[in-house]
Amino acid sequence: MPRYKLTIEYDGAPFCGWQLQDNMLSVQGALEAAVEAMCGEPVRVHGAGRTDAGVHALGQVAHCDIAKAFPADRLRDGLNAHLRPHPIAVREVEIVPETFEARFSAKKRHYLYRIKNTRANLALDIGRVWRVPRRLDAEAMHAAAQRLIGKHDFTTFRDTECQAKSPEKTLDQLDVTREGDAINIVTSARSFLHSQVRSMVGSLVWVGEGRWSADDLAAALAACNRAACGVVAPPQGLYLVRVEY
Amino acid sequence: MPRYKLTIEYDGAPFCGWQLQDNMLSVQGALEAAVEAMCGEPVRVHGAGRTDAGVHALGQVAHCDIAKAFPADRLRDGLNAHLRPHPIAVREVEIVPETFEARFSAKKRHYLYRIKNTRANLALDIGRVWRVPRRLDAEAMHAAAQRLIGKHDFTTFRDTECQAKSPEKTLDQLDVTREGDAINIVTSARSFLHSQVRSMVGSLVWVGEGRWSADDLAAALAACNRAACGVVAPPQGLYLVRVEY
Repeated sequence: MPRYKLTIEYDGAPFCGWQLQDNMLSVQGALEAAVEAMCGEPVRVHGAGRTDAGVHALGQVAHCDIAKAFPADRLRDGLNAHLRPHPIAVREVEIVPETFEARFSAKKRHYLYRIKNTRANLALDIGRVWRVPRRLDAEAMHAAAQRLIGKHDFTTFRDTECQAKSPEKTLDQLDVTREGDAINIVTSARSFLHSQVRSMVGSLVWVGEGRWSADDLAAALAACNRAACGVVAPPQGLYLVRVEY
Repeated sequence: MPRYKLTIEYDGAPFCGWQLQDNMLSVQGALEAAVEAMCGEPVRVHGAGRTDAGVHALGQVAHCDIAKAFPADRLRDGLNAHLRPHPIAVREVEIVPETFEARFSAKKRHYLYRIKNTRANLALDIGRVWRVPRRLDAEAMHAAAQRLIGKHDFTTFRDTECQAKSPEKTLDQLDVTREGDAINIVTSARSFLHSQVRSMVGSLVWVGEGRWSADDLAAALAACNRAACGVVAPPQGLYLVRVEY
């Protein structure tokens, strides 16, 4: 049975998140319905990461096994046609060995968090960024962020409903840059805990506002206590950019 | 009476265009309502360019005279508050001499047209780009575009309802670049005819598809005949980026 790797872009706004939930519109559910419409049988689609409600993806990856063999491009075009009512694009389909697992074969996940640091309204980027009106010191945010790099117990930056067995993760990158009123936070790791990126970003905004020093951020990490976390950044600024294998 | 210069971003989707129209939602109308709500009297807002229905702006410029003197930042914040139901952002307010005219003082207008050249669906850029599924040769488009640079009679690329007195315009820049599946067309001139950018872009897509050569494009220009134009590109890919004074 051929295994297919799908690279997927979506606007997270209308979805309850990646994962199937009863009576809710999920990205996974929309994809499974499109696959079933093409091949006439129910098929499980496995994603690399369970993005939360409202979180976007530029390059989510999923795999599925389909009894029928499709040329990759035909499967991509057919899935896109069936997905058209949804803001979901299947950007690429590849035929992969059956050892490929979207979730477990992933070597690195790359996320982007977009802040717009402006007192003005949002217009073209409504639903695409977190608007923070108070002036943020992006350099201070970047410097503080480096205190989170490496292998740590990230309990402070972990949703209380996170199901990972261990709170230990190795953070490879957490860069904060400003371009005009756009502040972009780029981060990568083999894997992240539930809400980890949004928890780190919200805490970095406290640093940018001058409410926290870099030492305060490091102390929050060391506390290994969810109550020590800053605000959790809202979902619409977060993008799963790429999954490396 | 102080004169204010406004720099404005908007999502063109919900509007009948920049210009006031009876019983329609226009950007100009929304701005005038916001100014009136702040200063308690009807005020005319004059724009640098009349963007069509669905066309976006990153940096539209307008001016207005208000009897009451506001600090620039307070006017910006107040207008943004009153505009909040609309995807309109007043990015900057400046107090300018009364000789400043948003439309007539403009030295150069810069537009961007965004194409996404993909067979996949759109997701995050729905309403923000023109999706063209057939593979486009961006280098051929760029080379042909240079045939339009300079002073010409642009009747071929002019909407039949255009009210400009002369069809002569001087085109300063028309650059086509590709980055992955994004094709960006950047153009500037002191001013443009009605639908000129979209008419040039649609004709360039014919070049990119191999349907027209650069000579065909030059012949269309030389024909000075609206019927010689290629397809007119749809509005949602067009952005008024900046107006220079």
